[in-house]
Amino acid sequence: MNKQLICLTACLALTLGGANALAARNVILFIGDGMDDQQITIARNYLAGAAGKLVMDKMPLRAASQVLTVSEQGQVVYVADSANTATSMATGHITSRGRIATSAGTDKPLLSIVAMAEAAGLKTGLVTTASVTDATPAAFVANINMRYCENPQAIFGTEVSGITLPDCPAYTKANGGPGSISEQIAASGVDVVLGGGRKHFDMPAEGSSDSVRAQAEANGFTVIDAANQLTSAATDTKLLGLFSASTMPVRLRGESGRKAESPTPSWANRVHPYLGSVTLPAPMRCEPNPEYAGMPSLLEMTSTALQRLDNEAGFFLMIESASIDKQSHERKPCGSIGEVAQLEEALQAALAFVETNPETLILVTADHAQAAQLVPATSLFKEYPIPVYTPGRVARIVTAEDAILAVNYATNSFPYEEHSGANVPLFANSEGLGRVPTLVRQTEIFTIVRDYLSLHN
Amino acid sequence: MNKQLICLTACLALTLGGANALAARNVILFIGDGMDDQQITIARNYLAGAAGKLVMDKMPLRAASQVLTVSEQGQVVYVADSANTATSMATGHITSRGRIATSAGTDKPLLSIVAMAEAAGLKTGLVTTASVTDATPAAFVANINMRYCENPQAIFGTEVSGITLPDCPAYTKANGGPGSISEQIAASGVDVVLGGGRKHFDMPAEGSSDSVRAQAEANGFTVIDAANQLTSAATDTKLLGLFSASTMPVRLRGESGRKAESPTPSWANRVHPYLGSVTLPAPMRCEPNPEYAGMPSLLEMTSTALQRLDNEAGFFLMIESASIDKQSHERKPCGSIGEVAQLEEALQAALAFVETNPETLILVTADHAQAAQLVPATSLFKEYPIPVYTPGRVARIVTAEDAILAVNYATNSFPYEEHSGANVPLFANSEGLGRVPTLVRQTEIFTIVRDYLSLHN
Repeated sequence: MNKQLICLTACLALTLGGANALAARNVILFIGDGMDDQQITIARNYLAGAAGKLVMDKMPLRAASQVLTVSEQGQVVYVADSANTATSMATGHITSRGRIATSAGTDKPLLSIVAMAEAAGLKTGLVTTASVTDATPAAFVANINMRYCENPQAIFGTEVSGITLPDCPAYTKANGGPGSISEQIAASGVDVVLGGGRKHFDMPAEGSSDSVRAQAEANGFTVIDAANQLTSAATDTKLLGLFSASTMPVRLRGESGRKAESPTPSWANRVHPYLGSVTLPAPMRCEPNPEYAGMPSLLEMTSTALQRLDNEAGFFLMIESASIDKQSHERKPCGSIGEVAQLEEALQAALAFVETNPETLILVTADHAQAAQLVPATSLFKEYPIPVYTPGRVARIVTAEDAILAVNYATNSFPYEEHSGANVPLFANSEGLGRVPTLVRQTEIFTIVRDYLSLHN
Repeated sequence: MNKQLICLTACLALTLGGANALAARNVILFIGDGMDDQQITIARNYLAGAAGKLVMDKMPLRAASQVLTVSEQGQVVYVADSANTATSMATGHITSRGRIATSAGTDKPLLSIVAMAEAAGLKTGLVTTASVTDATPAAFVANINMRYCENPQAIFGTEVSGITLPDCPAYTKANGGPGSISEQIAASGVDVVLGGGRKHFDMPAEGSSDSVRAQAEANGFTVIDAANQLTSAATDTKLLGLFSASTMPVRLRGESGRKAESPTPSWANRVHPYLGSVTLPAPMRCEPNPEYAGMPSLLEMTSTALQRLDNEAGFFLMIESASIDKQSHERKPCGSIGEVAQLEEALQAALAFVETNPETLILVTADHAQAAQLVPATSLFKEYPIPVYTPGRVARIVTAEDAILAVNYATNSFPYEEHSGANVPLFANSEGLGRVPTLVRQTEIFTIVRDYLSLHN
């Protein structure tokens, strides 16, 4: 090859390099709801063994995300919920617990990365194993003062166990608002919305005889209900998949549906903690959850989303494995483990997509930490001849390594555990190198995505 | 500048670069005992604010470390202790809980990075706020089957609260062994050993009328007892600093010595969990611990160690902030926070040292996760008109942001909480880039240090 040819080849490479630099860029943001380091370690031990590695563990960048929230008065609060944390990531703004892309105190709508991507001509998608109206996906597509206002009835106040939860009067259509979360999704331009929550769409829209679902169809959505429609649905429309009435059933459960249980102290031990004995919950295995039958996996939903979103202008896709958190609230470690496995499979598909679409930033993070703790199967204090056991609930799971994985839940004695406040992991593929510092405020995830996609107001 | 001059300058730079590549290399390994992401977040919130950053947060590399342990029979165990984890980092071998650089099952001595560094002519140092005989420093300098065998009496069995803890018969001098941990330290070649644990040296050595301390002096150690001797001690000897009888008192404590406390339910609530009310422990501030007076800080010990170890052949220095863990066992969050602050100050000094000694790898990690959980100051379920509170103990700390930092301890009701099993953070300075992957098995910390210092058997 002569020097001129070398020079020409170099020029061609530079030209193509320049073209690539202008090529479509994509972002895939995975949110493992409640997927903190305890949850990841519990899942790793079960799925890959104590010394094994998960798919996310093999990503080239690991950072941490500072979870931030405030009270309505703007006072610092140290433990967050999924509404304010999704708002941080979707809009770059810190808000109060329960709020969906609206500002604490002043109740103003906050512009989301999905709206910005749409305005710039990118495609957008939201995939979740929760209701599509649940807090995490909602903050990317809706603006409302309270996460419970998921549908045209709930916007006037939801009753749960005889307790009326807060309503969203300023957001009703009667008051000139955009309506409930399901109505805002129906009216949106998001290209792919997949998850559960059919019940929030199968009711009349506010002030209308049409269902919310009918409104979505009128707005150009193909609405599907079953896994087998994922690949057969028309590809020239927006797609709304509603595969279950509410949260999608999870993949795994404890043996015969068992969850973490209270240890049973003997009568002598009830008289004095140094006396008697304790019976711990019997060890159990995780098993397939029969209610999961017929559900599309997070992998299947992700594959459909990637096929539909792949386009020359680029896309933003948020994929949530929601029930890592929800199962932890209910003290069901097998459920949480199965939903980490779902996220892992979807992540593997995203990583495969990037092989042919290198200008794709993949981020994997959690929104907040949870209650579950991996605790010793045999107490550190076993030499002491007294019963040592949790004041909360514990599940003792037999793993493939034939060891006992003990998971403790003890933040309260209410039917649902609390969240916890630790910073959470943030992983990225090689596109994150140089873009994701070792500790980011959760709001910076918005900034990183915005800058990667060159989205600006 | 002509081409020849440019070439000569480049050659000179290459030559100097070559010389630098052969210059002394140092490793400073910080271990925050029990310093998991919950502890770090709790400390960050208190010391720097929810949106603030700690010194460790600003390091250019963040990874995670998989904490691994086994039973004596080699079966996987999911929650570790400080003995086996320090053994992982010091020797690269997974062992069982309680063991100090000896193999599970076979009870063979495991070669530590300190012995390897000494053999290669590097200086070595161990700094801790625990007894220097405690599990973490011990695994770097001693080999023994059980951590409790800290001194010539305990090696025959320790009695705690009427319970006899395991002994170490094969390691007694009477049986031809190397003796207890304090005797092994006294006989060691470590250049700087600083911490607490004087009581383990102020007793006769086994089969001798001399104290262990006298044996240390006979082996070339200058032994000091007070902070003001740190800078005045002879510099041409090894240095053993023993600043307290046992664990060094910690810097911070809860108001009037308060720790996490049980909520007090009303009588009605004791009858049924949906009735009545609960009184949570009153909020408190952290305050200086009067018992800390006169102690050298971890920073002062670190500065002395760095001054004494800095030499042309390089050094290995392990610095442990031990009571992040010990205070968490005792449900004392202010104590843990103060000891994270101590680690931060010492880390800042190490980072300053690196400015003039760039070939120094700094690693900051924890050995295992702990029980403390940052929980909501106001329950996520506050809309429900029933008392929602922890079944364990909670401390509610008022921070400089004038917010309530609620820390829950609920792994058991024993006087000491359990460890937990999550993977723990691993930070590195820029020397770690390309050397520390995003997830390491804890034993790989040994490998990374060994390779950085070019130490090989």
